[in-house]
Parts: sequence; structure tokens; C-alpha cells
Amino acid sequence: MNGAESALHTARAAGIDLCLANPGTTEMPLVAALDAVPGIRAVLGLFEGVCTGAADGYARMTGRPALTLLHLGPGFANGIANLHNARRARTPVVNLVGDHATWHLDADAPLTSDIVSLASPVSAFVRTTRTARELPGDVAAALAAACEPPGGGATLVVPADCQWEEAGGPAPVAVPGAPAAPDADAVAAAAEALGERAALLLGGAALSARGQRAAARAAGARGARVIAETFWSRMERGAGLPALERLPYFPEQALESLRAVTDLVLVGATDPVAFFGYPGLPSRLAAEGCRVHVLADPAQDAEAALEALADAVEAPPRAPEGAPAERPAPGSGALDPGNLGATLAAGLPEGAIVVDEGATSGLPLYLASAAAPPHDFLTLTGGAIGQGPPCATGAALACPDRRVLSLQADGSGMYTLQALWTQARESLDVTTVVCANRSYRILQIELGRAGIAEPGPSARALTDLTHPELDWCALARGMGVPGERVETAEELARALEASFREPGPRLVEAVLG
Amino acid sequence: MNGAESALHTARAAGIDLCLANPGTTEMPLVAALDAVPGIRAVLGLFEGVCTGAADGYARMTGRPALTLLHLGPGFANGIANLHNARRARTPVVNLVGDHATWHLDADAPLTSDIVSLASPVSAFVRTTRTARELPGDVAAALAAACEPPGGGATLVVPADCQWEEAGGPAPVAVPGAPAAPDADAVAAAAEALGERAALLLGGAALSARGQRAAARAAGARGARVIAETFWSRMERGAGLPALERLPYFPEQALESLRAVTDLVLVGATDPVAFFGYPGLPSRLAAEGCRVHVLADPAQDAEAALEALADAVEAPPRAPEGAPAERPAPGSGALDPGNLGATLAAGLPEGAIVVDEGATSGLPLYLASAAAPPHDFLTLTGGAIGQGPPCATGAALACPDRRVLSLQADGSGMYTLQALWTQARESLDVTTVVCANRSYRILQIELGRAGIAEPGPSARALTDLTHPELDWCALARGMGVPGERVETAEELARALEASFREPGPRLVEAVLG
Repeated sequence: MNGAESALHTARAAGIDLCLANPGTTEMPLVAALDAVPGIRAVLGLFEGVCTGAADGYARMTGRPALTLLHLGPGFANGIANLHNARRARTPVVNLVGDHATWHLDADAPLTSDIVSLASPVSAFVRTTRTARELPGDVAAALAAACEPPGGGATLVVPADCQWEEAGGPAPVAVPGAPAAPDADAVAAAAEALGERAALLLGGAALSARGQRAAARAAGARGARVIAETFWSRMERGAGLPALERLPYFPEQALESLRAVTDLVLVGATDPVAFFGYPGLPSRLAAEGCRVHVLADPAQDAEAALEALADAVEAPPRAPEGAPAERPAPGSGALDPGNLGATLAAGLPEGAIVVDEGATSGLPLYLASAAAPPHDFLTLTGGAIGQGPPCATGAALACPDRRVLSLQADGSGMYTLQALWTQARESLDVTTVVCANRSYRILQIELGRAGIAEPGPSARALTDLTHPELDWCALARGMGVPGERVETAEELARALEASFREPGPRLVEAVLG
Repeated sequence: MNGAESALHTARAAGIDLCLANPGTTEMPLVAALDAVPGIRAVLGLFEGVCTGAADGYARMTGRPALTLLHLGPGFANGIANLHNARRARTPVVNLVGDHATWHLDADAPLTSDIVSLASPVSAFVRTTRTARELPGDVAAALAAACEPPGGGATLVVPADCQWEEAGGPAPVAVPGAPAAPDADAVAAAAEALGERAALLLGGAALSARGQRAAARAAGARGARVIAETFWSRMERGAGLPALERLPYFPEQALESLRAVTDLVLVGATDPVAFFGYPGLPSRLAAEGCRVHVLADPAQDAEAALEALADAVEAPPRAPEGAPAERPAPGSGALDPGNLGATLAAGLPEGAIVVDEGATSGLPLYLASAAAPPHDFLTLTGGAIGQGPPCATGAALACPDRRVLSLQADGSGMYTLQALWTQARESLDVTTVVCANRSYRILQIELGRAGIAEPGPSARALTDLTHPELDWCALARGMGVPGERVETAEELARALEASFREPGPRLVEAVLG
């Protein structure tokens, strides 16, 4: 058994069942091994950012890593942006990156580069395999590192000769450790702090339904607030779950939201900071003098910690009633972000997975869908745009019996539009709604915030997406995905209904006024 | 004057006139400065790989760097693959990468990452600016480093506060040094070595018309061969220039080509090595015992060195007559790479710039166009696919009065198809011919070379681009570029003629049987 086969047997025995790949010559033995080792589905992405973003989406929904298979330094580099998002989501991902044969590296052939330097910023674990016999053990170490709570990216550089030479068969993989149990002192301190001017800030696993119910019990008993961090990996939500505030994006609003909070209790979240630094505004968002308590760090069991906290404050055993199921009325008339969000929330199927890269057009859907039928809501954790279409692809691969609603900004979507092809090839149930406002709207807002009231021609050229307008339906059709353009909320509602009825991917270009 | 304005005044005074940008919030002061500082054209790419690849193409044709303006680590990462190609082409490129305000870095906000670690593998110069007042000097240092022969990538990380705070105005930029003069001993040694079993291997500036003529004089006087390296940055060619061999891509053929060469004289090229390492084949391509002589390394003046060599071997002052202008007959019937190449060569306009990322479909055009009207020929130097559409975009920005023929493999083209939008927005005279063989054909060949006679379903899935087929005309139309599908050489000839007659971009999807 060669190194490549030994590596994939190792991964399969650890539960890996998906490999998102765009291989090249240096990965051919691993490609062949995908046929020799049963049980690992090989899915092609036409750009590596599709592979890494899909691995992120898959792991967010399953809790298990997928493999990516990438081609040397440049191929890995194309996947970095979405690995950055995965790192911020603390998603387990295992990247196998082919490299030249060990004896060929000194030749400095055209594709040679420093892969470790490229990988380190987005990988909790980086290793270069030295021999075929060490490869299965290295794969096992990468898997263990990725799954170590709170989860992270692991990158293994695999020279081609380590794939094709004889190895000794698979290596054992350590069963990943469970998240660390809650710390009794932290629970006691949080219980002490919890009062009417306290807030629980939830992130990571605290945003499961179980975590939210326990948070609502604890906070309800003391009149404290429960707030979700601004961007999270995966949130369960919808009818029956308690209400949850969301920390605003812009620092002025976030500072205002936290102004009166004297005790901020972090549960799977980190001390909140501004997304960007602005002149005259602080980095930290908690009020000056606010005491910050860590009930559970991202590697600890946030759900158990919240339940322990609820018990410690002698909360009633049942969480407060959540909102009853209530769909908002769909919007009407010419589309804008508001009626777009209402119309999407009105039509959201039960069990849907919402992937929100709607940028400036995304918030209304979040607000309108709080009491929609139960669903999951995934966000852009690392700010690296082009995450939506790949993440939606991975979520659909993870959950083939659920509909994925991919709410996508047009500027961001152009980064990784190739994901649509994978959705078509794999017949994935993804409905992509492109918020076509024909601009990098957030940058137009930021220009205004920077005091540039009337942008000049260069600033306009760099933030405007007209001349020419993108035709998203043509782009989708070019990759085998049927598309439809809508300009009113009524047309959108009909297009959504048609999409949710039919299996397979579909794109709706929602032209925003 | 703030840091951003001081930086751009510095660049403008050094001759910079183009900035290929995809900025974000941390680059807003530089965006505003593009309006405040006249003379630097701002061109938007809808993905950073478009910006970096276009900067490569622009500098290959002008000899001068363009700026790129990129957004933090993830935005830079999206540009790495084409910076890798630029590095291998030894192209001067200057990247300005925004970062968080210096005082915001410790907050580890979502977009924070180690930009220097990402930049180092593709940059001869990396620096992080510390204060606004140091920014113009840092820009001057980056420009000088990029232009230092043989040319390279320079990456400057510019925190947002260094852009928006007051600075002292522009800094002086050192005039770039000329390439080092030829070494008299090296000329003498090469003259000594030149004989019937010797070969000149040309790369870099040696592939100019002047360099080729001098090489032909020198080699002709001694019966030596003249060979071009396999992949080069820019070659002048066509009718009137002496014939030039090209070192084959696959190592078996390259070894055979060099088997009888006892003295290999490198002129702007490096000691040739195999593109990939294969079992049982060596890394180095020169025969065992072959003496390798460096007439000019890539930082030396290759043209002057070749002229000195020609004089040293007492060559006649005029180069041997090149081939007379002779267009091949266009092909006929159903398209394959052979008649595709012939038909393109038959229609090639004088002064065209050919950007060849045709991969397995590219070689016939090169072979058929040797005596076509004078043109330039640019190739994929670093093996990082997705170079063609951006490089063609940059070449067209550099040379608005010339037609660019972008010969593009379908698999590679999907990596950076967003470049078509920039071609439409800027009304660039680029004719893209997509070689639609519906596969990663090179990988199917490599599977065969690896002994996998009958690929299994995974290997087929990862190398095949059908199910669904890409519709390149729809993709082009989606970005404002008119497209046409052709299936025969006659249809291709008509489509080319129409494209060359009309200004602006056009795409021809050439379906290969």
C-alpha cells in the first residue's frame, strides 16, 4: 500500500467521508487513492476557494472535518481567504497540499514556493511530510489537531514521492477530546456577576438551541441580557427559541449597545472588538470599567457551562417561552433590502440553512426570520469575502435533505462564483439569492464615514459595479444553474416558491433599487 | 498632505501611472488619494488575482511596475497565485496592502492576519509601514526594490492610520539601476565553449528581437543551437527573426533535446530543470557531463552579453536572415488543437500580443506562428493557472493600440474569469479564445503517465469538466463581453476576423473535439 492509500485509509477510519479537491500533477497518487479507498466522496471545485469554503460549510453543519486536496503553494494560496474565515469560525478543516517530490525541491522548479509560510497564518497545525512511511501518522496528527477543541485548520504538505512510495498502511487516529468541562469558579463568578446590568455574550457552541435555552434561563432569572456576537459560525434559531440580541456591526452602535453593561459574561465568544479601527473610536467595545468574565472560552463546553450557570442562579428548569411561530408578511413592490428580507423570511422552509453573505443587504432577513420555522443561520466570520457560495455548497453536501438559502451580495459573490458549477454538478439543493445593488455598497458607506462626501471618479470607479452591469442569470446559466431575475417582492416570492419545490440549485438575481 | 497622498505622489513622480485595485475599508484613504493625485489610473478588478495578474502583464509589456491595491491578508492572498507567476517572470510589481490601524492590531479583529508571512514567498521586498511620515519613503524603497534588475515583487503593508495621518509629502525615488554589464570572462568562456555541440539557452531579456539576433549571429558562426527556455515572460517573434527552438515541457523530450549538448550557455535563463519530478527521471535536464556556462544571469544585460559574444566569435555583423513573412494556411473542419493553432496564426494581426495559457492546446499556435507578422508572445511562467485573462488585461492596458489574443484553456480560465468584466469596463481590445476541451486534459495525461490506464470514478470526476458543460459565451455575456461559440476552423476564422475588426473585448469559445 502506497503513502497516498495509507493516508486515505487513515482518514476514512477517522470518519472522513468527503474530499473537496482541485488537484494537479503532484497530487495524482492521492487522486488515484480516492478510487482505491472506498467511502470518501471526491467533489471537484473549479477554484480552490470553493474547496476550502465548502469544507468550512460542511464542518459547520456536521461538526466533522472534510479534506481539501490542493495543488502546491499557488493552489493552496487560492484557498487561503476561506481558510481565514474557517479559522475565525474555529472550523475543523484538514488540507492536504501536494508538493514536489522531496528530491526535486532543490531544483527550484517553476511551481516551487514556501508553502509553510503561506499556510501558517490560517493553520493551527502545519507539517511537511518527510517520508511515505510517516505520511499516515502525519495525517492522523493533522486530523487530531483539527478536531482538538475548539477546532481549527490543519495543513499537511505532502511531497509527491511520499504519496507514491510504499508505506506501512494506515495509522491510528486519536479520538478527539471533548470540550473542556465548565470551570466551577468561572460559573460561580458569572453567577455572582449576573444582574440587570449584566449581559451574556454568546458565540460558538453557545449559539446552539441548547445553549440559547440555558442562557435564557440564566439571564431570565436575573434580568440580564443575552446577546449574540456579531458574526458566528452557526446559530440555531427560529420559532420556539428565546429572543436574542445581536451585537451591531458598526462600533458606534455596538458601543451604545454595551454602554450600560457593567458585567459582560463571555460564553464561547471573545472580548468584543470593532471590526475596523476608526479615528477617535476605541478597539474594545465593552464600556470603560465594564468587568469582563469568561464563563467558557471557545475550547470549553459552552452549553454545559450555561446550564451550570442557570442552575447556580436557581433559574426555573424550563427556558422562557420563545416566540410562537410567526412568519412575517412577504414584502411588496420594488425590491429593497427590507422587503427582500421579509419576503425571504416569509418563504423560508422549515429546516433551511441560511448562509448570509448579503453584506449591507443581509440584516433585514436576520431580523425578519427570528420566529420563522426552525432553521440554521451561518455568517461570514472572518470578513474575507467570497465565502457565501462555497459555504452554501458545503452545507448542502453536509445536509442533503435540507434546503440551503444562500443570500449573496453581488460584489462578494463574484469572488467565488465558480461554486455554482459544483452545485450543478452535485445537484445540490441551494437557492442563491443575489442582492444585486450593483456596487460595493459597504465601501460607499465607508467613504462617507471617512468624510468623503463626494467621491471623485477613481473612488466611484472602485466602488461601483455598473458599466457593465453583471448579468447573474447568464453567469449561473454558464455554469449549469438555472437563473431568474426579479425586481419586485412578488416576483421574488414566486421565484423562491418555484425553487423550493424543485430539487437542485437555482439562482435568483434580486435587483435592488 | 496625508500619508496616502504622499505615497501616491511618490509613486507618480517615479513614473507609476496605473493602480489595479480591489480595496476595502482599510484602504479608503488611498482610494481617496487616487482622486487627489493626478496621473494614476485606477482600474477595478472583481477579484484580486485579476489585479496581480494584470500588473504582471502590464509590466511585461512596459518594463515598468503597476501598483496593486489590496485589502489586508485575505485580499492579498487572493492575488498570490499570479504574484507567483510574476515572480517567476521576474516582473516588477508593487503591492500596497492595507492593514488595520497600528493601534487596532492587538485587538485581533476578524480580518487580522499575518500578512508578512503570506507575502514573503512571492515578494523580493516586504515591509510594514510604521508611521505616516515613513510611508512615502517606504513606497520609494518598494519601487526601487521592484525595479532592481532583474525585477521582482515588492509588498508594502500599510496600516490605515499611516494612510490617514499627516505626512511630510512625497519622498524621492532612486532611479532604478541598469542591468549589470556583461562579464568579460564569461563572454570569453562562452566564446570558447561555443561549437557544434553547444547551445545557447535564452530567457528573460535575451528573448527580445535584439537578443535573438545577436544569439543567431553568435551561434551561426559556430554551428551552435539557440533554444528558448520552456516558459518565458515575453518573447518578440515573427517574420524576420531567426528560428528558435523551444525546450520541450515533458522531461523525457527535454532530456532528449539536450542529450547531445556538451556545453550549455545560459543567457538570462537558469539551469533547466523538469517542471515536475517523476519516478526514475532526473530533476536537471542538461545531459550528465554537460558543461553549463553562465553568459548572463537574469540580473545582467543579456542583450549586450549576446552582442559581445557574437563579436568575440567574430560573427558577421548582420544576423542570418529570418524566415520570410509567411502565414500558415488556416485550418479546416472540426476543431482540434492543431487546426486551432493554424487558424489563429493565419489571422494574427501585426503587432498582436499573444498571451498563451492554452495549456495542452497551446503549442500548435506557437509552432504555426513563427513566421507570422511580428508579435509578442507571453507565457505562463510559474505554472499557477488562472494567469491568462488577467495577464491579457494588463497587456491591453499597457498597449492600447495593439490587439491582444488571449489563448485560454477552459479549466485554467475558470480561475480568474472575472478579468473579462474589467476588459469590458475598460473597453480593452482583447480577443479571448477559450480552448474548450471540457477537461483538465493535462491531468488526464498525467494520470496515464503515472500508470493509471483506466481512471476510476473519482479520478474521472476530478479531471473532467462536463456534467455540466461550461457555457463560456453565457459567462462572458454575464460580464458584458460578447461571445460566440465555434466548432469548425472556418467558423473560428470568421469569428476572429470580426473580433479584430471591432474595438473592445470579445470571447470565442472554440469547442475542441
